[in-house]
Amino acid sequence: MHWSWVWITLCLLCPTAVYGGRVLVFPVDGSHWVNMKVIIEALHSRGHQVSVFRTTDSWYIKETSPFYTSITLDIESGFDEDFIGTFVAQLLEIQRGGKSAWTRFKLEMEQGQKASEIHKKTCKMIELLFDTDLIQSLQDAKYDLVLTDPVTPVGAIVAHYLRLPLVFNVRWTSQGEGHFSIAPSPLSYIPLTGTELSDKMSFLERLFNVINFGFWKFQIAYFVEPYYVGVIEKYLGPGVDYSSLFQAGDLWLMRVDFVFEFPRPTMPNVIYMGGFQCKPAKPLPEHLEEFVQSSGEHGVIIMSLGTLIGKLPHDLADGIAAAFAKLPQKVIWRYKGDRPATLGNNTLLVDWMPQSDLLGHPKIKLFVAHGGTNGVQEAIYHGVPILGLPLIFDQPDNLFRIEVRGAGKIINIFNMNEDIFFQGIQEVLNDPSYRMNMERLSRLHRDQPMKPLDTALFWIEFVMRHKGAAHLRTESYRLPWAPVSAVLY
Amino acid sequence: MHWSWVWITLCLLCPTAVYGGRVLVFPVDGSHWVNMKVIIEALHSRGHQVSVFRTTDSWYIKETSPFYTSITLDIESGFDEDFIGTFVAQLLEIQRGGKSAWTRFKLEMEQGQKASEIHKKTCKMIELLFDTDLIQSLQDAKYDLVLTDPVTPVGAIVAHYLRLPLVFNVRWTSQGEGHFSIAPSPLSYIPLTGTELSDKMSFLERLFNVINFGFWKFQIAYFVEPYYVGVIEKYLGPGVDYSSLFQAGDLWLMRVDFVFEFPRPTMPNVIYMGGFQCKPAKPLPEHLEEFVQSSGEHGVIIMSLGTLIGKLPHDLADGIAAAFAKLPQKVIWRYKGDRPATLGNNTLLVDWMPQSDLLGHPKIKLFVAHGGTNGVQEAIYHGVPILGLPLIFDQPDNLFRIEVRGAGKIINIFNMNEDIFFQGIQEVLNDPSYRMNMERLSRLHRDQPMKPLDTALFWIEFVMRHKGAAHLRTESYRLPWAPVSAVLY
Repeated sequence: MHWSWVWITLCLLCPTAVYGGRVLVFPVDGSHWVNMKVIIEALHSRGHQVSVFRTTDSWYIKETSPFYTSITLDIESGFDEDFIGTFVAQLLEIQRGGKSAWTRFKLEMEQGQKASEIHKKTCKMIELLFDTDLIQSLQDAKYDLVLTDPVTPVGAIVAHYLRLPLVFNVRWTSQGEGHFSIAPSPLSYIPLTGTELSDKMSFLERLFNVINFGFWKFQIAYFVEPYYVGVIEKYLGPGVDYSSLFQAGDLWLMRVDFVFEFPRPTMPNVIYMGGFQCKPAKPLPEHLEEFVQSSGEHGVIIMSLGTLIGKLPHDLADGIAAAFAKLPQKVIWRYKGDRPATLGNNTLLVDWMPQSDLLGHPKIKLFVAHGGTNGVQEAIYHGVPILGLPLIFDQPDNLFRIEVRGAGKIINIFNMNEDIFFQGIQEVLNDPSYRMNMERLSRLHRDQPMKPLDTALFWIEFVMRHKGAAHLRTESYRLPWAPVSAVLY
Repeated sequence: MHWSWVWITLCLLCPTAVYGGRVLVFPVDGSHWVNMKVIIEALHSRGHQVSVFRTTDSWYIKETSPFYTSITLDIESGFDEDFIGTFVAQLLEIQRGGKSAWTRFKLEMEQGQKASEIHKKTCKMIELLFDTDLIQSLQDAKYDLVLTDPVTPVGAIVAHYLRLPLVFNVRWTSQGEGHFSIAPSPLSYIPLTGTELSDKMSFLERLFNVINFGFWKFQIAYFVEPYYVGVIEKYLGPGVDYSSLFQAGDLWLMRVDFVFEFPRPTMPNVIYMGGFQCKPAKPLPEHLEEFVQSSGEHGVIIMSLGTLIGKLPHDLADGIAAAFAKLPQKVIWRYKGDRPATLGNNTLLVDWMPQSDLLGHPKIKLFVAHGGTNGVQEAIYHGVPILGLPLIFDQPDNLFRIEVRGAGKIINIFNMNEDIFFQGIQEVLNDPSYRMNMERLSRLHRDQPMKPLDTALFWIEFVMRHKGAAHLRTESYRLPWAPVSAVLY
């Protein structure tokens, strides 16, 4: 068979033409990279060439990969594993130790200081990028598209300079929850992240929401945007400001959907791909399958607090282990700290676990989780109820979305003890409504015309085919008061 | 092969299960029915049973059909062909005859009077429906879904009473352009229908937009909603008002997309299916194909002013015919009036034409159109530039969306003469940018992950499968000031 027939057959099989686009990716390390990697691998499998930007201290983003070529900038980003892990450890110590509000405030200030250093380092990265011949080599490489995580503005700045179409893989921007940068977000029914409010608010809750919005805008205006004024002016010239860089995005691939997120106004260039990383469960490794099967009719509980929280204070870990030990279920606990003295025979400590494959196993009865978006989406996909122990960032809000739908329960980890934890497990395990509600969410989530990853790929390739998606971008961005009016009422 | 294998194979081939849902349809007659029929036929072909509501004077909606069973209410709706045709004829006479503003005002008042009669008749329809055993028989039939055109509230009222999921096939509601009932619509960049404004407005244009909004809201509040207060109170009880009936819709299948419409805020339960009725062109009937081929290299122009405008004033028809006669192109003109004296040999008058099949024919160079949504979408689909002669309703705005994108040109039919018309044709024919821009719109429109009709069907069946789509409906509807705030800024 002549090769051209193979090519034509391929084209006919694929909804979009298979052609070798060139994609330049600016990822964010840690759990964000887990997401970006899914898209990069899918782009690679569809014949696109992917270049990934990293720094010398990138910890998850490897220099060599079969799926991409890396471009390593000879600088440290300062955004490392330690940054968040240490913060969480200190936060747990302060909150659980009943330390003073002043100690908590000092920690927040220290954290703010570290964030400030990261912004300064990011600016240095941008300067290094533009002042070496790297930017020229990016220009020469004639990319079709910049794909970036908008937690930092680097990708948006490069896309603007190179005049390339810009696609965000987004849940957060450096200005907060992604929607707030792009869609009308009336504060009367759109809860700000961190408030743990739903879309049904009392008057006082709305007031609290508005105050939080003001405080958050103040933080962005004084502690984020000013760092970048200089580099934007220097490399992109006048007429560009920090917000306009983000509003220039052709597409926003949003890592949520409306099974997870409360219904809210959106925009034509927002593509929802929540759960795009989810896949049917693969068979477990033999030793895990054996352990799971040994649980008999009682089933298995799995627990993970995510990639960043390896260790817990000893008393907390002991309480958790002791509560698990009282259960007839088997437990798989991803934990890197010292082995708790109270650990029962029914509990397996692991450094890492195939979380999604376990969640998809019919024996799994409950997921004890910190509430990162990835884990919550996987629990929805597989229909496993959650007992939530949120710590920082969006974790309380993510879990709250599960709780208000009756598909899980939140426990305050800062004043949790063995009894509270045990009661929480009992409640979610024994009240069938939790599982029924999560299974309902799962049915809704899975009932989509296309898989979320395929939808994302379609639209990335759409932007390549048409060299942007200007017809989907609203005129509201030209309006000077739009950010104020978008949250009115 | 056992029949069950056939069934399983069918299920595997279809993205959604083929099962016999029961759909109750409340259509609107005229061009709206053309759209609804497309969906009804598709639902029928997927194994659903469809019942269609009609009145004794329904003119397009036939009593018998292979695709649906009809339910005829023994009453006249008053919404007939004559209603709009007469209005347009009088409007043309007044505007072209240089009659006084007072005459025009009187016509508008007469028209308002007729609209008022239609509302009264609609209320009588609702009363007849509820006071006979018809509503009981609808209840007994155990429908899965009400599908309705929200130009009248009948379908929404019945869905509310029967507690059935509600899907709108919508471009207009009785409260105006569909989006204004459901999504934030800031008047600074969302032009009101009838203003012929784009999303880029000067300060004065915005002011004009706001004034129009006020006037329109006044009309709805005083000349539409009051008619229905009584029947809503009587049959649905307290706690329901006119707006909440529409906001109760589970899905809004919107007959536009963002190739046609300006980008704007939207909502999770709005599904865009603009151009869902478009299909690849079928071969033309032999006599038409011969006529088209006889045009040689010059190609063919087609002209239609839609289903409602059969006749034009003699002088106007003569001017149009004379302009056509001067062209080297062949012309197919859908016209039911007397044969103009100036008609050239190159022009074929027809009562009806296969418009979409003609638009998809490579010989067609130009579409002279009144600017109904259907025709404009078909022109986009087939990439044929438009010379627009808008008359009433949304026609000027529809054509304006084509004009600002450089894919067509509007002529004011009220002061048009032979020369102006001839110049207009020449310009759109000879400046290649019109066709290039329309072809660009066509490429964008056709580049979707799923065909718009398949998307619509998926979501209709989604609502049947899950008995609604409450998770996509926003909380904003509970808020008393939402209609005001939604248009701010």
